[in-house]
Amino acid sequence: MKNIKIIIEYDGTNFKGWQKQPNIRTVQGELEKTISEVTKEEVQIFGSGRTDRGVHANGQVANFKTTSSIPADKFRLVINSRLVNDIVIKESCEVEESFHSRYNAIGKEYKFLIYNNEIKSSLLRNYTYHVPYKLNFEKMKIASKSFIGEHDFKSFMASGSSAKTSVRRIDKLDINKTNDIIEVKIKGNGFLYNMVRIIVGTLIEIGCGKIKEKEILSIINSKQRQNAGHTAMPQGLYLEKVFY
Amino acid sequence: MKNIKIIIEYDGTNFKGWQKQPNIRTVQGELEKTISEVTKEEVQIFGSGRTDRGVHANGQVANFKTTSSIPADKFRLVINSRLVNDIVIKESCEVEESFHSRYNAIGKEYKFLIYNNEIKSSLLRNYTYHVPYKLNFEKMKIASKSFIGEHDFKSFMASGSSAKTSVRRIDKLDINKTNDIIEVKIKGNGFLYNMVRIIVGTLIEIGCGKIKEKEILSIINSKQRQNAGHTAMPQGLYLEKVFY
Repeated sequence: MKNIKIIIEYDGTNFKGWQKQPNIRTVQGELEKTISEVTKEEVQIFGSGRTDRGVHANGQVANFKTTSSIPADKFRLVINSRLVNDIVIKESCEVEESFHSRYNAIGKEYKFLIYNNEIKSSLLRNYTYHVPYKLNFEKMKIASKSFIGEHDFKSFMASGSSAKTSVRRIDKLDINKTNDIIEVKIKGNGFLYNMVRIIVGTLIEIGCGKIKEKEILSIINSKQRQNAGHTAMPQGLYLEKVFY
Repeated sequence: MKNIKIIIEYDGTNFKGWQKQPNIRTVQGELEKTISEVTKEEVQIFGSGRTDRGVHANGQVANFKTTSSIPADKFRLVINSRLVNDIVIKESCEVEESFHSRYNAIGKEYKFLIYNNEIKSSLLRNYTYHVPYKLNFEKMKIASKSFIGEHDFKSFMASGSSAKTSVRRIDKLDINKTNDIIEVKIKGNGFLYNMVRIIVGTLIEIGCGKIKEKEILSIINSKQRQNAGHTAMPQGLYLEKVFY
């Protein structure tokens, strides 16, 4: 039995998210179907975490166990040749038997793209979150620094989610602007449900003056979801990298 | 009767090109349908030129005549609010009665995106032309200069097309590389059918050594389609701007 780790890119537009569900088109479902065909076994794949409907990935990680004789590094080519074209395996390799893409993850990096223009874009509609009112980028940049470090991020967790603890550490939160695109890059030891999207929604409300740039720490300390901003739209979000 | 000029962005992925055809989803067809609904008249729209299936636009131009009382600059909002989301009107204004988006055009600018990576991309599959073998960018850059100027571009015209003359002037051909993306920007006084895609296909064959970088002028002078490179895939092509 070999344990194969794969790095996956997908365009989330036409998937109802990562997690397999009966009769619904999901990334995990498509991958399991194709990998089972290729290995001629019923394969179960384990992702580093779920992504929601519409969310993309440049570097999702998953693993699966197989007795197939296909060399580990060849899985990429063999799977890609049969896979739907909105998922691509970028890398495949053998890892030790105990490796689990979710339990062994020690960090993740996400990217979020905001399209800040009065007029919406047809070409970017599935790949950015369109914000039509002018955002004050400098205020967003100042506010972004307050998220860094270890905090209880309960204010930035979708209500109703059931994490054991809502303490997380954010190592990096970079924000850059190129023409009408604002790119947020965020890296941490783990993220609560909808945490990245709520952080981005809060930064947007800072950018349009609804929330003051100095308020972040008091929003964190309040541990009240309603004090943070809205949940930014999923199509701007990309899972960039999983760290082990 | 007012003559309204519109600047249009579209994601060509799910259209069978610009030109209206019965029972087929085209950009012109969708625009005429929506503009006719908005103006409550049967409106005909005139584009600056056709684009093929899969080709995108950031700045296609069209015009239409109407007796509607909607102010010219408000057409943008009114049409966008009813239009399918893979087309967006970026600007609308009134122009003189004699203006025709095709006959009055004095030049066009196109962009072409090549994704040069061994592994294909799911996120870029509809927005770039994937070239898996390593391209020599410097050779492509050298070759690109030979296209500039007025030439008979018969070698770079799809066989079977019936242009009165195949003489065209290329004013600019810039080629840049950012990570795995090679961007070709080309501006001229007009383009023959498939001309941009054949020029890009030829640059790609220079990049992989099939054609020498000094051969461009002799390919132009031969006036033989078979001496130029292949026709690059449509999804990498964007109509950027039309000049009047």
